[in-house]
Amino acid sequence: MKSHSVAMLGTGLIGDFYTMTLHGQRNRDRVSVVYSRTQERADSFAERWDIPNATTSMHDAINHPDVDTVVVALPNDLHEETVKAVADAGKAVLCTKPLARNAEEAKRILDYVEEKGVFAGYLEDLVYTPKHLKAVASVEAGAIGDVTWVRSRETHPGPHSAWFWDVEKAGGGPIVDLGCHCIEIIRDFVGKGNRPIEVMCWADTLVHPIEAEDNAVALIRFESGALGQFEVSWTFRGGMDLRDEVAGTDGTIWLNSFMRTGFEMWTGGTGDGYVAEKAESDSGWVFPVGDEVAELGYVDMFTDMFNAMDDNRDPKEDFYDGYVVNAIMDAAFRSVDSKQWEPVDFEWRHGSTPRISKEPDYYDGHTVIKKEILPDGRVKMILRHRDDGSFFDLIV
Amino acid sequence: MKSHSVAMLGTGLIGDFYTMTLHGQRNRDRVSVVYSRTQERADSFAERWDIPNATTSMHDAINHPDVDTVVVALPNDLHEETVKAVADAGKAVLCTKPLARNAEEAKRILDYVEEKGVFAGYLEDLVYTPKHLKAVASVEAGAIGDVTWVRSRETHPGPHSAWFWDVEKAGGGPIVDLGCHCIEIIRDFVGKGNRPIEVMCWADTLVHPIEAEDNAVALIRFESGALGQFEVSWTFRGGMDLRDEVAGTDGTIWLNSFMRTGFEMWTGGTGDGYVAEKAESDSGWVFPVGDEVAELGYVDMFTDMFNAMDDNRDPKEDFYDGYVVNAIMDAAFRSVDSKQWEPVDFEWRHGSTPRISKEPDYYDGHTVIKKEILPDGRVKMILRHRDDGSFFDLIV
Amino acid sequence: MKSHSVAMLGTGLIGDFYTMTLHGQRNRDRVSVVYSRTQERADSFAERWDIPNATTSMHDAINHPDVDTVVVALPNDLHEETVKAVADAGKAVLCTKPLARNAEEAKRILDYVEEKGVFAGYLEDLVYTPKHLKAVASVEAGAIGDVTWVRSRETHPGPHSAWFWDVEKAGGGPIVDLGCHCIEIIRDFVGKGNRPIEVMCWADTLVHPIEAEDNAVALIRFESGALGQFEVSWTFRGGMDLRDEVAGTDGTIWLNSFMRTGFEMWTGGTGDGYVAEKAESDSGWVFPVGDEVAELGYVDMFTDMFNAMDDNRDPKEDFYDGYVVNAIMDAAFRSVDSKQWEPVDFEWRHGSTPRISKEPDYYDGHTVIKKEILPDGRVKMILRHRDDGSFFDLIV
Amino acid sequence: MKSHSVAMLGTGLIGDFYTMTLHGQRNRDRVSVVYSRTQERADSFAERWDIPNATTSMHDAINHPDVDTVVVALPNDLHEETVKAVADAGKAVLCTKPLARNAEEAKRILDYVEEKGVFAGYLEDLVYTPKHLKAVASVEAGAIGDVTWVRSRETHPGPHSAWFWDVEKAGGGPIVDLGCHCIEIIRDFVGKGNRPIEVMCWADTLVHPIEAEDNAVALIRFESGALGQFEVSWTFRGGMDLRDEVAGTDGTIWLNSFMRTGFEMWTGGTGDGYVAEKAESDSGWVFPVGDEVAELGYVDMFTDMFNAMDDNRDPKEDFYDGYVVNAIMDAAFRSVDSKQWEPVDFEWRHGSTPRISKEPDYYDGHTVIKKEILPDGRVKMILRHRDDGSFFDLIV
Repeated sequence: MKSHSVAMLGTGLIGDFYTMTLHGQRNRDRVSVVYSRTQERADSFAERWDIPNATTSMHDAINHPDVDTVVVALPNDLHEETVKAVADAGKAVLCTKPLARNAEEAKRILDYVEEKGVFAGYLEDLVYTPKHLKAVASVEAGAIGDVTWVRSRETHPGPHSAWFWDVEKAGGGPIVDLGCHCIEIIRDFVGKGNRPIEVMCWADTLVHPIEAEDNAVALIRFESGALGQFEVSWTFRGGMDLRDEVAGTDGTIWLNSFMRTGFEMWTGGTGDGYVAEKAESDSGWVFPVGDEVAELGYVDMFTDMFNAMDDNRDPKEDFYDGYVVNAIMDAAFRSVDSKQWEPVDFEWRHGSTPRISKEPDYYDGHTVIKKEILPDGRVKMILRHRDDGSFFDLIV
Repeated sequence: MKSHSVAMLGTGLIGDFYTMTLHGQRNRDRVSVVYSRTQERADSFAERWDIPNATTSMHDAINHPDVDTVVVALPNDLHEETVKAVADAGKAVLCTKPLARNAEEAKRILDYVEEKGVFAGYLEDLVYTPKHLKAVASVEAGAIGDVTWVRSRETHPGPHSAWFWDVEKAGGGPIVDLGCHCIEIIRDFVGKGNRPIEVMCWADTLVHPIEAEDNAVALIRFESGALGQFEVSWTFRGGMDLRDEVAGTDGTIWLNSFMRTGFEMWTGGTGDGYVAEKAESDSGWVFPVGDEVAELGYVDMFTDMFNAMDDNRDPKEDFYDGYVVNAIMDAAFRSVDSKQWEPVDFEWRHGSTPRISKEPDYYDGHTVIKKEILPDGRVKMILRHRDDGSFFDLIV
Repeated sequence: MKSHSVAMLGTGLIGDFYTMTLHGQRNRDRVSVVYSRTQERADSFAERWDIPNATTSMHDAINHPDVDTVVVALPNDLHEETVKAVADAGKAVLCTKPLARNAEEAKRILDYVEEKGVFAGYLEDLVYTPKHLKAVASVEAGAIGDVTWVRSRETHPGPHSAWFWDVEKAGGGPIVDLGCHCIEIIRDFVGKGNRPIEVMCWADTLVHPIEAEDNAVALIRFESGALGQFEVSWTFRGGMDLRDEVAGTDGTIWLNSFMRTGFEMWTGGTGDGYVAEKAESDSGWVFPVGDEVAELGYVDMFTDMFNAMDDNRDPKEDFYDGYVVNAIMDAAFRSVDSKQWEPVDFEWRHGSTPRISKEPDYYDGHTVIKKEILPDGRVKMILRHRDDGSFFDLIV
Repeated sequence: MKSHSVAMLGTGLIGDFYTMTLHGQRNRDRVSVVYSRTQERADSFAERWDIPNATTSMHDAINHPDVDTVVVALPNDLHEETVKAVADAGKAVLCTKPLARNAEEAKRILDYVEEKGVFAGYLEDLVYTPKHLKAVASVEAGAIGDVTWVRSRETHPGPHSAWFWDVEKAGGGPIVDLGCHCIEIIRDFVGKGNRPIEVMCWADTLVHPIEAEDNAVALIRFESGALGQFEVSWTFRGGMDLRDEVAGTDGTIWLNSFMRTGFEMWTGGTGDGYVAEKAESDSGWVFPVGDEVAELGYVDMFTDMFNAMDDNRDPKEDFYDGYVVNAIMDAAFRSVDSKQWEPVDFEWRHGSTPRISKEPDYYDGHTVIKKEILPDGRVKMILRHRDDGSFFDLIV
């Protein structure tokens, strides 16, 4: 039974979620070193999670002899140098989302770890939620036919840490913070071998006094003809809205990951207690989540990462995926400026995907457009005439 | 107590819904003449709804001495000539949606009825659903602040009559069939005096062997900065998906008008019975609607139309609205071809709308970006420094 | 086209709902006289609803020459004398729920109107909600097989008027105020010809400083074997909970009539506005209803009442139904005291209902207990052996 | 880092769920021996779950030198002898629910393990679901005030294995199979130190040709005055209905653990795949669960059991809890026969719980019955007069 010893770089909200996951249930792996810029934060984090070592030296954390795996849970502008330092140390590196601030930076990171040959996992948790995993498995088993459209939505009232709001450090607003999740969710449903061709994006800064956008909607056209659609916002009111919708030629999937999951509470506001990440109030109707780290995918994500290491295979999400995500976001930002569809420019490593196709049925030589069962049991068909292509209906 | 006597032109599904509404509950108004192209359909309709006169002469129907109001429930390509004939007869005309196949045609219809001075109502039922009316009233009362984004979605497996599928007769696919609903829903939420500036649209024919699109997503940018988004499809599986979502600076509204309205039934398929418009199956879990003509807005729509006539005022939806809808759809079609944002070209009759604005709060001279109450009751603020514009957080 | 002229006795919340309904949409019938104990309330009501006559004389209201129908919307202890006065005047009488404070009183009311031969309708709105009507129609069409169990729940934080809380005036607490609704809902689903045999009831006064119960749960056993279950409370927090669940041998129905009907709003509390009857807050997540008088059944109820008068037939709900309801509530109160099942004592006017029966299937002579399709497509059966009655499973 | 080596006794559905949990994610503990009555089933199970040892000797399984913990996943009639054999071997024993067929048997089991001093855990998974754990924590933190009522419902179309249907082996029908879950859920919400006083139960065999009941509803009165209510059925149609509702003096909780958890799929039935435990169909609208073993509580349950062993403390659910559950079920069965409330006869080990109390507010010396904010901002109060106890309302 293998286990891993982790250095956690960063003590923000995401570091808490990661460590809560690693130290949760009967997990074998542990955080043995934590790094923060200030000793106070490092110590407080170490105490909170019972971690033996706390340091303000990133070098020491990475190179600590107990450590075989380093988790990068730092602001976006520090990913490149940090990942390179871990690769130099020859250790496994797991980097939080997004991989980088843009595709160029992401590509340098990707190339570096590939050159060094270290294990590199991309910590995109939302494609590991139990619902997502099961839904993708259903799609792959053919339950909804060919996917035609995917909507992925993540909106909330804005992030918790100051650096997110600084466009230099973050690389953008919610497109970068939240769109990166949505893009991987969409790619998983349309198929990761389905090349993203072009992107159309609207973005605007409607509410907050910042340089970055605070709202955006983007359309992504894939080679098969499928459309991906992401909606992100830092001005949503009411909590965190995490929903995905998938349309296929033979089915439909709707996922709600946060506010309507079968847990509803009305409270007069008596008592005390944390409701859920980014909940906006603690009285009235609130919609908690049972086990957030499980529901948000962290548990299955780390399981996949460590199992991949143990089995000497690639994880479901690797740095190439992170790079693709950045390439799509870059196209989105270009489209905001150009006001037209922009091609996704990047190195494509997968093959090609055929057009969505559905062979029509025929009735007496006419093409069947639609069939419907009437209340009296008869079947009504909309047909296209075999000779002149005209449309007519027929009840049989 | 005034009442109206109606000529119903057309005996398709929409004619049934309209007549079911007019003859429902304790309504004062009645259909006294029905017109269809074939006597058989006219007679069958007249018998079904207890209508004294059935004819294949549109002229006779319109000019029947009992009739004061004519409802045009015919395919899109017949609207112009029919409305003009009603206007020539000097009677009130109520025309089903969309008003026309394009803005040019719509403008001719609008100009004609205005010249003739007859009462003209646009039968856009979905802005009259009880939920919509109440939601718009809440928005107008300020319950969600300024509207920033509206999503309106209408998708189902395709229309019931052959002519819808013929792009010449219909003027388009689901953009024209369903998008017209969504556009008025969006306009009502962002404010009808809020000018639609430009449109970006994706459309594709993914599944059906037709010339028209069978799927489309469009973005509409309004003068205030608000974004409208409509999603339409004739390839959705699972029934009819009618949902609207509204985001505002101080609130959120989610409406579901069809499949998740508090009525859930699992049936082994025994018994017989109509479940709901465009339901895809009659066994397993089904989601009926209580009173479809009320829930879909027909009741409130006709109430408004006849009350407007009686009170000598304009109805909530008039032919100018129909014309605006066509102008937006025209821009959408142009955008599908040009692959860029297209301006909405039309005669604007309302004033101008100011930009969405939210005055920031200040704390000690710094701009407050975000406030959050921590589990322990303290308040965490993301602030923007009054001097250098840098972002930092503060817990007080 | 017939229309009715109504005297409204009472100006409380229910009088408002009734009048809003009668004066709503394109309804033909009008309230022409309103009675209240104080002229001020009568005048205010008359002004609010545009009613020509307002009086403090019940006699004058009932005998007003314009009036053909009298609606009794008064506290429970006034029903008997008022209904008798209307019957003496020879006018149609519509009485709000419950008919009386107990079955004895109800029986006297019933006998009196039958003797006088006036039209008498029992205003039980919740069996007229569009959802309920459609659900009952589905049950009657066989969609869920034989009904085995019905749960009807109505709970809220307590009524609006003082007299409800006075056990002398009301005849009880929520059993009388809310249980009466639930009982008719249950009877409609199990079949009104299905005799209620016995009742078991728990009740307690847990929160409010009153003599009446403030919480109760009752079980009603019907002749067919079906079980009805009602849950009522004046201490529920979060709004008004109106839900019904029906189990049948071949299906299931779940109805939610108030707080989860596809209308969800989060509001920061800006703006102003009424959310819904008995909503507990006007900020945070709230769940409005589109058109309350339609959704709560008032529209269909009055339509049935007046159509019944016009067609010279009985309404769906008559005073005999009101009497049955009181008889069941009486048994419930007796059971609270005796702590055992109590028979329902009353005059039964319908026939008898056979026991729920489901003929078992047989496989090779063995009784099939259960069939299940395995993921691999095989069928697993639980069988009961034809010879010794033992249970075994078999996969085929 | 401690880990445990488990003998799994039994290879039915529950053995699969348990082993899937133990071998899931990065869990430290493993099943090292499996026992079944037939070698074929033991081997197949061992292969499915990669277990090194498979045997038909229960003695060998229990006494295998690698094993420190034995999981009893066998039919109810085998629990007593099996648990005793494990206790004799001096190993930790974890027994599936229910602990026994009746309280007498349960008490003998409890006494035996206490005498032998072995660790004994009661595998009641549904009080370990993430939603339940969080909801109970909220209740304990005071979020809904004092609990007044708990409804726990578990219904489905019937169990998978033949022995469940045999009243001799099982000890009863769904009261024993499903009611045991509900009772512990209820106890957790009202407080485990809150003594169950008496039980009222209805049960009937409505559909299946069996001796046991197939439907039951029970009421449990606790010392505080709170009411528990469980509803169980083997004739429910539509899947598995697992819902809990909790009412408190200051709040409300609704939990849905299975069919409405934010995962909705419509499928034409193409593809293949398991939807969820006890799903009734694989086409149309289906409602899968993301990670069943996590959502159903198995993960947190085993975590608590093994952590309790490692920390030398009692688990959340022990054999005394199992005994209490049996005592309540015994009272339920007695009540079915006697048709009256039956006391719960058992050895109570906790203290006493005070009556639910809510101190009323006073206004000007009058008792406040209810406060309500009117649409115009004024407050309407129902008051009880300080002198004569009469009820009146006041708007201030």
